[in-house]
Amino acid sequence: MEAKSVHLKTYCDEGMPGPEHFDITTTAVNVDDLQDGDIVVKASVMSPDPYLRSQIKNSASTAGLAPKPLGSVMSGFIAGKVIASKNPKWTVGDLIGASLPFQTVQIVSAAALQSTVAWKLTDLVDEAHVSHGVGVLGMPGSTAYGGLIDVLAAKHGETIFISGAAGAVGGLVGQIAKKIFNCTVIGSCGGADKCEFIKTKFGFDHAIDYKQYPDADSLTAAIKAVAPNGIDMYFDNVGGIHFEAAFSSLRPHGRIAVCGGISQYNQAVRNNVSINPLQMIYTYQRIEGFMCMPWLRGVKGNFFPDMSRWLKEGKFHIQETNFEGIENWPAAFQSLFTGGNFGKVVVRV
Amino acid sequence: MEAKSVHLKTYCDEGMPGPEHFDITTTAVNVDDLQDGDIVVKASVMSPDPYLRSQIKNSASTAGLAPKPLGSVMSGFIAGKVIASKNPKWTVGDLIGASLPFQTVQIVSAAALQSTVAWKLTDLVDEAHVSHGVGVLGMPGSTAYGGLIDVLAAKHGETIFISGAAGAVGGLVGQIAKKIFNCTVIGSCGGADKCEFIKTKFGFDHAIDYKQYPDADSLTAAIKAVAPNGIDMYFDNVGGIHFEAAFSSLRPHGRIAVCGGISQYNQAVRNNVSINPLQMIYTYQRIEGFMCMPWLRGVKGNFFPDMSRWLKEGKFHIQETNFEGIENWPAAFQSLFTGGNFGKVVVRV
Repeated sequence: MEAKSVHLKTYCDEGMPGPEHFDITTTAVNVDDLQDGDIVVKASVMSPDPYLRSQIKNSASTAGLAPKPLGSVMSGFIAGKVIASKNPKWTVGDLIGASLPFQTVQIVSAAALQSTVAWKLTDLVDEAHVSHGVGVLGMPGSTAYGGLIDVLAAKHGETIFISGAAGAVGGLVGQIAKKIFNCTVIGSCGGADKCEFIKTKFGFDHAIDYKQYPDADSLTAAIKAVAPNGIDMYFDNVGGIHFEAAFSSLRPHGRIAVCGGISQYNQAVRNNVSINPLQMIYTYQRIEGFMCMPWLRGVKGNFFPDMSRWLKEGKFHIQETNFEGIENWPAAFQSLFTGGNFGKVVVRV
Repeated sequence: MEAKSVHLKTYCDEGMPGPEHFDITTTAVNVDDLQDGDIVVKASVMSPDPYLRSQIKNSASTAGLAPKPLGSVMSGFIAGKVIASKNPKWTVGDLIGASLPFQTVQIVSAAALQSTVAWKLTDLVDEAHVSHGVGVLGMPGSTAYGGLIDVLAAKHGETIFISGAAGAVGGLVGQIAKKIFNCTVIGSCGGADKCEFIKTKFGFDHAIDYKQYPDADSLTAAIKAVAPNGIDMYFDNVGGIHFEAAFSSLRPHGRIAVCGGISQYNQAVRNNVSINPLQMIYTYQRIEGFMCMPWLRGVKGNFFPDMSRWLKEGKFHIQETNFEGIENWPAAFQSLFTGGNFGKVVVRV
């Protein structure tokens, strides 16, 4: 069986990643010769996500990982279907979400299934909506869920500020905050169209076009204009001046969930932020970093039951920006950094 | 009855506080004319604590409080005895710890007892050890207890770095970490004598003389020399380069408890620290500010039973630096900033 995959061609330590950094290659996969425990996964969608930016740097990553070898296949979140199985846990026809190599058809061993994260989407969505497996019922959804509910410990009626608000994670954070916790929800994103979009489609109360605010002081003033008493929570997808402005806007008992820093990803050296930790003492403030894994794996919280129920109840407006074909994965990935995306960017393969 | 009290004479926005900033005055207290609910407290000891530094600034404090009026009496933690009572909860002879005006004899109304924090030391210590009420069984003890156990969520065998390690709070944090959690305990303090002291008396595993390290990089190297794999926890009493060095030494799942910033208190403008929050994401790191109140009030944890039991079991070396007489409260306060103190500074009145 023929399969296509996305490979790292050259490192991009700095600046805008694009098609020139990747190769799409074709290989043959012998799906007739399976070992016990193997399944064959046919990807329907592949996900470009901002966190992958660090995988294509030659320099030491923030996570302290060794650089990815040139020529190796890119890995990330996909959703698709099990088309063959010698694994008792998986049935042919099962819908699956997983972190796997970006390859259209692949054999996944029992050991690989164990060491990565993979979950059954069957019964949660029908095949027409399998792309939810890389969105609301996948990494972005579990990031939004865990970050808002457990890391930020959202309380009803609080005020939350969310950067990257038009994106896959930020949009869901805002919608859960609004629909489940009745929060006052402030989002920042780039441009008037996105500002309008997060208010009308995602139900944000206020939108801040960050492109109007060149530094932390002016962004702080913009937050103050819509939240005169400050913010209780900040969900950080952006870093940089957003972090500083949010920190200085934080009310007593305020919390910051550090989830991403897309303003920094294309820089060779990431800027530090400047804060005064003394502010945190009498106010019992907290800053906490996290990623989705504990919630996506079910170690913490109740992500799949809660999120799929809310989805069925129509609580969310799901917005996707689609790219067709694995050949367009690099362009789709680039769109995350040019501001070309509304909601979840999905590559349909 | 004659009483003496400590008053703010002039503000000290910057630089070293000293006797010139305070007045000691004598007033008459009519203890024969009590209202229902009143008690009369005779202070045995008064506590100079670093957090009081912000009370004598005219500039806006970190806590956002209005400046203290000149001439007003200083307030802080005291321990002493109830010498008269029209309050059913208090008996003549009771030992008391409380946050109250620094006045040798004073009437405290039921409303004042309610709005401040006050606790009974009777049954926990005998009168000869009433100074524990401003130390191990008071603000410093509850700060160490709550910070280590709940904010840092210490686990057995972890590595902790503590700044201000020879002080009232830091010394107790290290001793609880060692005796109760069997942690590897690293302390920083100023000078060879204090380094020797925290190792031999408090049982710290390693001592770092911070005066040898002029910047965050060299301090980071000093931490690395004794903790090659980094630290799991940092208890911050100092701020500045200590915070930055600890942050960059933090292991995955590392936590920082922000409790104080004595390196900054004598400055008119406090320095920010520079950190990269992206470091916190994949590592699930956390920074949290706190003060003692939830534990001292019994809202969180089990401070008085736990701490008094450990004290009785001989788990702690209690070190006090004593000053005699309320007239020496300003000199005692100054000693916190000159490095003249070993353990808890106590003013006996």
